[in-house]
Amino acid sequence: MKLSIEKNLLVNALQVITPLTDKSSSKPILSNFLLEAKLKEGGGVVKLSATDYEISISGEFPAKVEEPGVACISARKVLEVCREFSSEEVRISSDEQLWVTLEGGPSRLRLPSVEVGLYPHMDPPELPNRFTMNSRELRQCIELTTFAAMTNETRKNLMGVCLRLSNGNSTQWVATDGHRLAQVTREAKDVQGESPPEIIVPRKAMMEMLRVLEHHDEAVEVSFDERHLLMTAGKTLLMTRLIEGKFPNVEQVIPKDSDRTVLVNRERMINALKIVSFMSQDKIKPVKMTLEPDLLRLESERAEFGDVLDELPVEYAGENMKIGFNARYLLDVFSVIQQSPEVKMKLKGSLNPCLIEIPNDSGFLSVVMPLRIEW
Amino acid sequence: MKLSIEKNLLVNALQVITPLTDKSSSKPILSNFLLEAKLKEGGGVVKLSATDYEISISGEFPAKVEEPGVACISARKVLEVCREFSSEEVRISSDEQLWVTLEGGPSRLRLPSVEVGLYPHMDPPELPNRFTMNSRELRQCIELTTFAAMTNETRKNLMGVCLRLSNGNSTQWVATDGHRLAQVTREAKDVQGESPPEIIVPRKAMMEMLRVLEHHDEAVEVSFDERHLLMTAGKTLLMTRLIEGKFPNVEQVIPKDSDRTVLVNRERMINALKIVSFMSQDKIKPVKMTLEPDLLRLESERAEFGDVLDELPVEYAGENMKIGFNARYLLDVFSVIQQSPEVKMKLKGSLNPCLIEIPNDSGFLSVVMPLRIEW
Repeated sequence: MKLSIEKNLLVNALQVITPLTDKSSSKPILSNFLLEAKLKEGGGVVKLSATDYEISISGEFPAKVEEPGVACISARKVLEVCREFSSEEVRISSDEQLWVTLEGGPSRLRLPSVEVGLYPHMDPPELPNRFTMNSRELRQCIELTTFAAMTNETRKNLMGVCLRLSNGNSTQWVATDGHRLAQVTREAKDVQGESPPEIIVPRKAMMEMLRVLEHHDEAVEVSFDERHLLMTAGKTLLMTRLIEGKFPNVEQVIPKDSDRTVLVNRERMINALKIVSFMSQDKIKPVKMTLEPDLLRLESERAEFGDVLDELPVEYAGENMKIGFNARYLLDVFSVIQQSPEVKMKLKGSLNPCLIEIPNDSGFLSVVMPLRIEW
Repeated sequence: MKLSIEKNLLVNALQVITPLTDKSSSKPILSNFLLEAKLKEGGGVVKLSATDYEISISGEFPAKVEEPGVACISARKVLEVCREFSSEEVRISSDEQLWVTLEGGPSRLRLPSVEVGLYPHMDPPELPNRFTMNSRELRQCIELTTFAAMTNETRKNLMGVCLRLSNGNSTQWVATDGHRLAQVTREAKDVQGESPPEIIVPRKAMMEMLRVLEHHDEAVEVSFDERHLLMTAGKTLLMTRLIEGKFPNVEQVIPKDSDRTVLVNRERMINALKIVSFMSQDKIKPVKMTLEPDLLRLESERAEFGDVLDELPVEYAGENMKIGFNARYLLDVFSVIQQSPEVKMKLKGSLNPCLIEIPNDSGFLSVVMPLRIEW
């Protein structure tokens, strides 16, 4: 194998795939990635790929290939060292003793490689259901839902985002951990295939998809069957296994009759939630919200170590009311709503869930359960 | 107590003193700071102070004082919450039940305070030996030496920087951990008193002094006796206990007959040292340095998990030679030499220490011991 590749292409690609290779103390081979040089008319391409068995990412990049070949080497070492190279190009070659040499100007890294056949290989299959969406919208679908997925393993089927293709060309994304829920509906294009009713994409795969999409501004294709999802963003492919199981029916959780509407400034609300939640030392940050005409007050519990109160002007014309929340849940959802300076909260009573909406984006909703508060 | 103070003044002051108050699980009272409001002509001042028994820091700031008083409250909570206040001013008041209220616009923090008499109080004494220096030069003295002080507790007397007043108006600062040494000599002004031969300022106090000096650009006064050092930077005072013990005589460690001079570009050398040290998984990062006419080569050990090599152009006219170092020690000293794009290394043989100098700054020198290398 003998090739040269632009340093920035190599480093950016490794930044995307290296996090996949990290937790490999039990399976040391998974600390490596595959580097494959192919001859093509006009120069050639290099394909980088890595997998943690659950998720696989690969990318193809233009390169000057003199001798095609393939090698399996440590992702973190190549990333750390090549990032510091002062040259614009990296020359890569391998010898018969399985040593791979990476050179950037006068700097040279030599690494032992692993037998390529030992590295798990995942060829992306043809998957029957598919749609395309622009990268920015897909990023929104991921950001606006994944925060609400469950992080502990008590209920496997909640540890991901449920994706449905429905109504011809619309995609629906839903996540919930039992305490809050987030749902996005977005139009897709080129919808094909007979979709299964729904699939559950693991939370971790959603976050990796987001990382891949940071480098892509064009249309993205998503395809899936009952067991796998494949995302194709230009020359970068991400494949993940899906979570088996049934996603709960969340329709009944979404309140339909919340008649008290509050319009709050998103940044000021985040600021107030932070101020009020600093005082609580638990994971749960209980906060009391009081609504009066055009005023929202947040208060922490009155503890022996102190308390905090904050107020912000809002648009509210309903009756005075008090309701308790876990401040962290409100912070999470307000933090991801980046496309709007204002957020709408719809309430009914102190024991009813709060519906959160984005003005001018009817495709999004979130539900946060109240906390019983006793102060 | 009743006053108002500019939010930024309060937050900046708390950022300086709060790190002192952190590690207080065994002595919970040390998580607090003292806030003292005094009436003065034209408004008043607020004095903030904190101590960890070893080091004390206090600062005085202008404030609108309506009612003088003093309170002892949690530093971290005040910092975290007040930092988020959206107002320009913070109003502070206390009631008879020892509750302190801090208000910024509509945001309000209420904290229980601790009986002021329980908090350790340190009045800065008059210390007989003193000098003044401008803040920038004092920062240099700290930065260019403290990195070389010992971090573990095997030899207490090396866990600080040795300060000597000598030759009328010159100060000398020396630190060593037995493997490397750094020494700075700088002129001082207004030198007074009969100094003891030398004092040892704890490493941690040196770092706190550096943090205080970030906010000061004017002249700084340093005074000391055998047991305490006091630094006065404007209205901010830092007092520290000194390390008792005798600092070793380091004069004999400084090589006098190094006749092989290498002039290296500082940034390129740091870059090469990083590249070469990534491969080693130990705390000690052994690196082999080879010198040839106008060329410096760095190589990591040839390990089964790979090796790295880097080369840089240098000014060197001596004989070819090889010498081993702990790359981390070289990185540390090259990193603090920020006033010069080039660094001079003076060598003799593979087993002799390396002398490091800054061109155009005869007041600095550093010594790094070589490592025996076998590759």
